[in-house]
Amino acid sequence: MIALPPNPPAIILVRPQLGMNIGAVARAMLNFGLTDLRLVSPRDGWPNPDAGPSASGADSVIAAARVHDSLADAIADCHFTIGTAMTTRDMTRRVTAPAGAVAEIRALPGRSALLFGPERTGLVREDLLHCHAICTIPSNPDFGSLNLAQAVAVLGYAWVMTHDPPPPSWLVNHDGPAAQAELAGLIAAMEGQLAANGFFNPAPGLADTARRMLRNIFTRPGFTGAEVQFLRGVVRGLASPRRPPQ
Amino acid sequence: MIALPPNPPAIILVRPQLGMNIGAVARAMLNFGLTDLRLVSPRDGWPNPDAGPSASGADSVIAAARVHDSLADAIADCHFTIGTAMTTRDMTRRVTAPAGAVAEIRALPGRSALLFGPERTGLVREDLLHCHAICTIPSNPDFGSLNLAQAVAVLGYAWVMTHDPPPPSWLVNHDGPAAQAELAGLIAAMEGQLAANGFFNPAPGLADTARRMLRNIFTRPGFTGAEVQFLRGVVRGLASPRRPPQ
Repeated sequence: MIALPPNPPAIILVRPQLGMNIGAVARAMLNFGLTDLRLVSPRDGWPNPDAGPSASGADSVIAAARVHDSLADAIADCHFTIGTAMTTRDMTRRVTAPAGAVAEIRALPGRSALLFGPERTGLVREDLLHCHAICTIPSNPDFGSLNLAQAVAVLGYAWVMTHDPPPPSWLVNHDGPAAQAELAGLIAAMEGQLAANGFFNPAPGLADTARRMLRNIFTRPGFTGAEVQFLRGVVRGLASPRRPPQ
Repeated sequence: MIALPPNPPAIILVRPQLGMNIGAVARAMLNFGLTDLRLVSPRDGWPNPDAGPSASGADSVIAAARVHDSLADAIADCHFTIGTAMTTRDMTRRVTAPAGAVAEIRALPGRSALLFGPERTGLVREDLLHCHAICTIPSNPDFGSLNLAQAVAVLGYAWVMTHDPPPPSWLVNHDGPAAQAELAGLIAAMEGQLAANGFFNPAPGLADTARRMLRNIFTRPGFTGAEVQFLRGVVRGLASPRRPPQ
């Protein structure tokens, strides 16, 4: 349904602490078409058996992950580097929101990198000095620290949205609205039954209002032909007991 | 820095399986200003000691969570209900992307609900029948199933972005670019030193190109006054050994 954008950025985890989180990052990456995972000095070494279960099937990302001793080595082939961080660590720095960060990555021809820091501290100043810009995920000022894999998921989502973003809303499994004649038949059947039951009698001035409301309510959803037929059966069913099968 | 949108939706976890995931959901919720957590028939009961650690401090959300026996009960006070799902389960259904879903929630005055299904199956057809619309997070067609808390994080991020979304990029801790005279002084100092060293001699036709490149390179970053002064020192430092302190 969705097309994945070309030339996705590398995801670089700088000094990640928990294998479980590395696996969860791999899953989030593959969810959004990101496959180039690089680990800078993972605390517990690599491979890490804790990564597998939380990867939940994203084994290809785990298997292809590369380990580097330094951040400089990890980003050597990258032409554009963005570090995710909640602050600029007092440095003069260009800050982007996720949508802006991935839009810049989309616009550049070379390989880009998105950096994520250790769980406890995030990226430190020495890491951010390698970055062309900083990406800050807008969050609660009083509780802003995101889980590592959730931060990757947010950026991954923003990345996918750079490519043919879907319209705000669309209908699925819909044959299209019934012809107006079918809809008119339904409404006429309802009106007929309602009129026979005296529904429009008590306040003649309100009868037109009621008829307009009936039409509005049943026109707005765009019922399909099959649904209109079904509703005619419902109207009959409401009006009288079903005849037993002959 | 960021203002949280008013009237946030309730987050409803339908038959959640793992306490760890419920805790991770609570953390993601509070990260994005969502506090109304409702659990429909959590598999392992409630409270669940596994939720605390992964909540990572979002204890207020955990403590305020309400448990319901049925989805109908959980959404009884909600006027607009959106179920997150990868498919419409063959039903005719209006589907939204996350940005569209939260935009609709923002536009409505009453309380809204965002539903998330069990880890293994997601929301089933009977759940989706309670929903006005379905929200599908765009993802890899070959690996589309998101972790529960990561899905909540993506929707939470989209929710925060409905309120005064930040510009694509902005500068932080920046005093503003230096006056052009300061910058011209730096460039003149560089040109002077380079000319003294014969930098512009070999190909006179290229000297103007080199001068333009120099000006372009040092104008584009918008260096502050302090940075321009520092760079003047760098130019001197490159040209000659530092005099020892007297």
